[in-house]
Amino acid sequence: MATSASVRVIPLGGAGEIGKNMYVVESGDRMVLIDCGITFPKNDQMGVDIILPDFSYVADRRDNLEGLILTHGHEDHIGAVPFLIQAVGRMPIYGRRFTLGLLRAKLEEHRLLDKAELIEVPYGTPVQIGPFSTEFVPLTHSTPDCSAVALSTPVGTIVHTGDFGIEFAPVAGRRSDLAALARLGEKGVQLLLADSTNAEEGPMPSPLPTRDVQNELARIFALARGRVLVTTFSSHIHRVQQVLDAAYADGRVVALVGRSLMRNVTMATNLVDPETGEAYLRPPPGTLVKLRELESRPRDEQVLVCTGSQGEPMAALSRIARGEHNQVKIAPGDTVLYSSSTVPGNELAVNEIVNRLVRADADFITERQNPKVHVSGHGSASDLLLMLELIRPRFLAPIHGEARHQRAHAALAGAVGMASDRITVLDNGDVLEVTADSASVVDRVNAGLTYVDQAGGGDITESVLRDRRHLSDDGLILVVARVDASTGQPLGEIEIVTRGFGSGEDEELIEETRACVEDSLTTSAGQRVVEMGVLQHQLHDAVAGLIRKRTSQRPMVVPVILEV
Amino acid sequence: MATSASVRVIPLGGAGEIGKNMYVVESGDRMVLIDCGITFPKNDQMGVDIILPDFSYVADRRDNLEGLILTHGHEDHIGAVPFLIQAVGRMPIYGRRFTLGLLRAKLEEHRLLDKAELIEVPYGTPVQIGPFSTEFVPLTHSTPDCSAVALSTPVGTIVHTGDFGIEFAPVAGRRSDLAALARLGEKGVQLLLADSTNAEEGPMPSPLPTRDVQNELARIFALARGRVLVTTFSSHIHRVQQVLDAAYADGRVVALVGRSLMRNVTMATNLVDPETGEAYLRPPPGTLVKLRELESRPRDEQVLVCTGSQGEPMAALSRIARGEHNQVKIAPGDTVLYSSSTVPGNELAVNEIVNRLVRADADFITERQNPKVHVSGHGSASDLLLMLELIRPRFLAPIHGEARHQRAHAALAGAVGMASDRITVLDNGDVLEVTADSASVVDRVNAGLTYVDQAGGGDITESVLRDRRHLSDDGLILVVARVDASTGQPLGEIEIVTRGFGSGEDEELIEETRACVEDSLTTSAGQRVVEMGVLQHQLHDAVAGLIRKRTSQRPMVVPVILEV
Repeated sequence: MATSASVRVIPLGGAGEIGKNMYVVESGDRMVLIDCGITFPKNDQMGVDIILPDFSYVADRRDNLEGLILTHGHEDHIGAVPFLIQAVGRMPIYGRRFTLGLLRAKLEEHRLLDKAELIEVPYGTPVQIGPFSTEFVPLTHSTPDCSAVALSTPVGTIVHTGDFGIEFAPVAGRRSDLAALARLGEKGVQLLLADSTNAEEGPMPSPLPTRDVQNELARIFALARGRVLVTTFSSHIHRVQQVLDAAYADGRVVALVGRSLMRNVTMATNLVDPETGEAYLRPPPGTLVKLRELESRPRDEQVLVCTGSQGEPMAALSRIARGEHNQVKIAPGDTVLYSSSTVPGNELAVNEIVNRLVRADADFITERQNPKVHVSGHGSASDLLLMLELIRPRFLAPIHGEARHQRAHAALAGAVGMASDRITVLDNGDVLEVTADSASVVDRVNAGLTYVDQAGGGDITESVLRDRRHLSDDGLILVVARVDASTGQPLGEIEIVTRGFGSGEDEELIEETRACVEDSLTTSAGQRVVEMGVLQHQLHDAVAGLIRKRTSQRPMVVPVILEV
Repeated sequence: MATSASVRVIPLGGAGEIGKNMYVVESGDRMVLIDCGITFPKNDQMGVDIILPDFSYVADRRDNLEGLILTHGHEDHIGAVPFLIQAVGRMPIYGRRFTLGLLRAKLEEHRLLDKAELIEVPYGTPVQIGPFSTEFVPLTHSTPDCSAVALSTPVGTIVHTGDFGIEFAPVAGRRSDLAALARLGEKGVQLLLADSTNAEEGPMPSPLPTRDVQNELARIFALARGRVLVTTFSSHIHRVQQVLDAAYADGRVVALVGRSLMRNVTMATNLVDPETGEAYLRPPPGTLVKLRELESRPRDEQVLVCTGSQGEPMAALSRIARGEHNQVKIAPGDTVLYSSSTVPGNELAVNEIVNRLVRADADFITERQNPKVHVSGHGSASDLLLMLELIRPRFLAPIHGEARHQRAHAALAGAVGMASDRITVLDNGDVLEVTADSASVVDRVNAGLTYVDQAGGGDITESVLRDRRHLSDDGLILVVARVDASTGQPLGEIEIVTRGFGSGEDEELIEETRACVEDSLTTSAGQRVVEMGVLQHQLHDAVAGLIRKRTSQRPMVVPVILEV
């Protein structure tokens, strides 16, 4: 190991936030990426469908790019891949079979399948990815084929955990390979980049929470007097397996509602795990049926698995709750089971759906009523400590978490004796330089956000978002005035349109505003203002001032001045 | 590996019970022992000081014995060693330095040090013990130098965990070597004998319970307005370290009360851990003082660590509570902190001490009031699952636990996919035959109890105990009668002595009993009964019948017939 060697690790997403994970690992001018995910927007990001990492750092060094490593198939790890390919072009993409299966469907949708070379990676045998011999290590998490990746670099091994939570009795049987982690640890790991999502959580209340979910599903199915609608994350194939098994045991059949769920289930049923030789999802005989076949069974022999656990307005459960689904209607005595947690920010949307379900006389069960109906795929503090104990890294960078989670993770490492100068809490864009003796932030690169409005088809700038926030907070007053092109004096009627502001019937205020517009334009004309921008500015300020004075509100004022 | 080879594992103690752990491992005619501990008696084992395993199986095969391996220094793992040496003679004893330190003190007390060859075992390098290459693996538990042992045998590796609980932030810094366990697991382990004590317990409420204890001690010391008396197990050197550290931080000095505690602390302070090069106990400067030095400090700068956490009547805290300690008196405002759990069976004794302390106006804190003042050294279900995950044994025998704990442990193994025919719940005396393909109980050997009354100096039989129970339940009537040696007729006054029965003043009953004795002897004489045993028997039954009829009680009736 040359002492002058260094490797650079740069989070472009996922550091200081939960979502849009993307990490650059560079040795010399060779670059490898780990994950490329999206974030779903928060409520104040109006009209934004998804948020991508800023690809400019990668795009500017396109020729250096050796490939993309995917730790697993969740949207916040693979969702941005089509956009990355659009931005930088064809590249080899390395991952496990199930991950690549999810990606393939996504690339087909974007008609980009020919732009990616998908390379399936085995467990147990390192593959060369750019300059790094890379080993995938199986870890349990809430979707199949999740992996940590260990990159052999000139400064030592760098381990990126992906997302993980240690389950001793996982549904599909593939356990976390703790021995492989211990082996890496014994050989020596220079840097550990580790999931921090649940660093603040204490130990699980049960040593085998996954088994508890199975028992609880069985109990709920046995007690439910009608149909049971289960909603969960559509990539949570293990949970779907648990629902299928519990339904089978209770003599129920299961149908799927929701496009992404049906696609994932079909894929998981057809795709064979290369190591076990078994399909990723194995429905018990006769249990998985089409929606129309369900209708012939009594309601207490029916289970529906639906998308929409996050209250997504167009997802199956939301449409069912609104009575807008053609084939599925709620009946009194149906049970709706949220076998999922509510991602922060989605509480109101979920709450609205629950209220609609309750009004339709459905029973409902969420994690809040019954903590056993879901278990997080992210390990709590104990799991993070176990990872640290096995890997015993020289340096640690807590990732996959907001600042509070990263710092809680750092505190755990401190509690088990890791010196604080060996722990770096990274932000997106930080350049972590790792040498044989050190790991420290030496630089910053661009790592902003890219908003995508999928209906609009293009990127959304921050200023567009600011406007949307303004509009959603305060509404709009549109002022349309005509002025004489030569004198600047107002002409004819002034149109005042309000949206999302006032009652719309406050004629007095509208009249006062008209007068204010006339005054403003007349004054401007007297001042011989001819530059349209200035004219608009003056008109804006006059109207905004009046409205603020009269109503204490600050709607967006949009003056439109037409010269005639 | 010859397919015909077999190894025999025989628990002589510790299977189906908590205590007196002792395991035989035999290959051909070579025998190695793992641990040799005592149990403390239950309340119905009157006058018994300690209970030993039955050594007859080992004594009968004395020439086969290659040595004794000690996993750690708790009494239930080393306490019976002096008695074993007395029973079978000199033998090599293998263990870690701290374990052997505790044993050395014990053997000196019994004047048996010359009968044992104590062999210190390093970590990381296997040692040959009889036919088995044996590796010690560090595990955390509530005394220093606890180890699992892995024996290479002709049928594969056998791992015995000793006692353990996985602490990620142990006090003394030596962590469990999970990587070594994983390495053993990867090479293949044929049989795992694993601690089951806390198999029924769910995960700890905190991921770092040991750190919580430290914080809680610091908080309690800071808030206590007077002296703090801390009681814990005298071998719990890590807890003593925590008390010393917390006292130092609060400007308090610490004195020790209790012989075993002082001996262990002196040893731990003088003994250097061979791997770390540091003493097992490291009192902060000026913190550990003699009891008489304590007196010169204000009470709120004093801490006493006392023996007696289990309410042992002669231990320091018990004598202090009874006001019988020469140097230590409780004063109002003192705080007594039980940094220990109460071993089942000791509740009443502890409760009595607590009541005495309260009457002396001391505050008290036990684990029940504040769960953070103690953490068990035995791992709960999660730790057992982690052990199974790392070792991945072909066969499992849950040990160190009562039947309920063993079965809970077996159920955990079942939940993570271990077939039930690979799990054997052993009882003491079961002969578990392990081959390359199987592990099953093929035989039973003697594995009873040996009671020791240390004052009496000798063993106590079960019938002695039965008598003691009888006496303690119902008291005694002693009948002393003289009979004519030739005729068998009663002569002179009949003595009736009662103890623990009646008020001792029921003259009427005594008189009636005398008459009954006369009648019985006269009748026996008429029947020409000359055999003393029969005479006694008839007298016994006559008196016992009378007493039962008159009082509905069943005291022990002891007839003493003197021929004159």
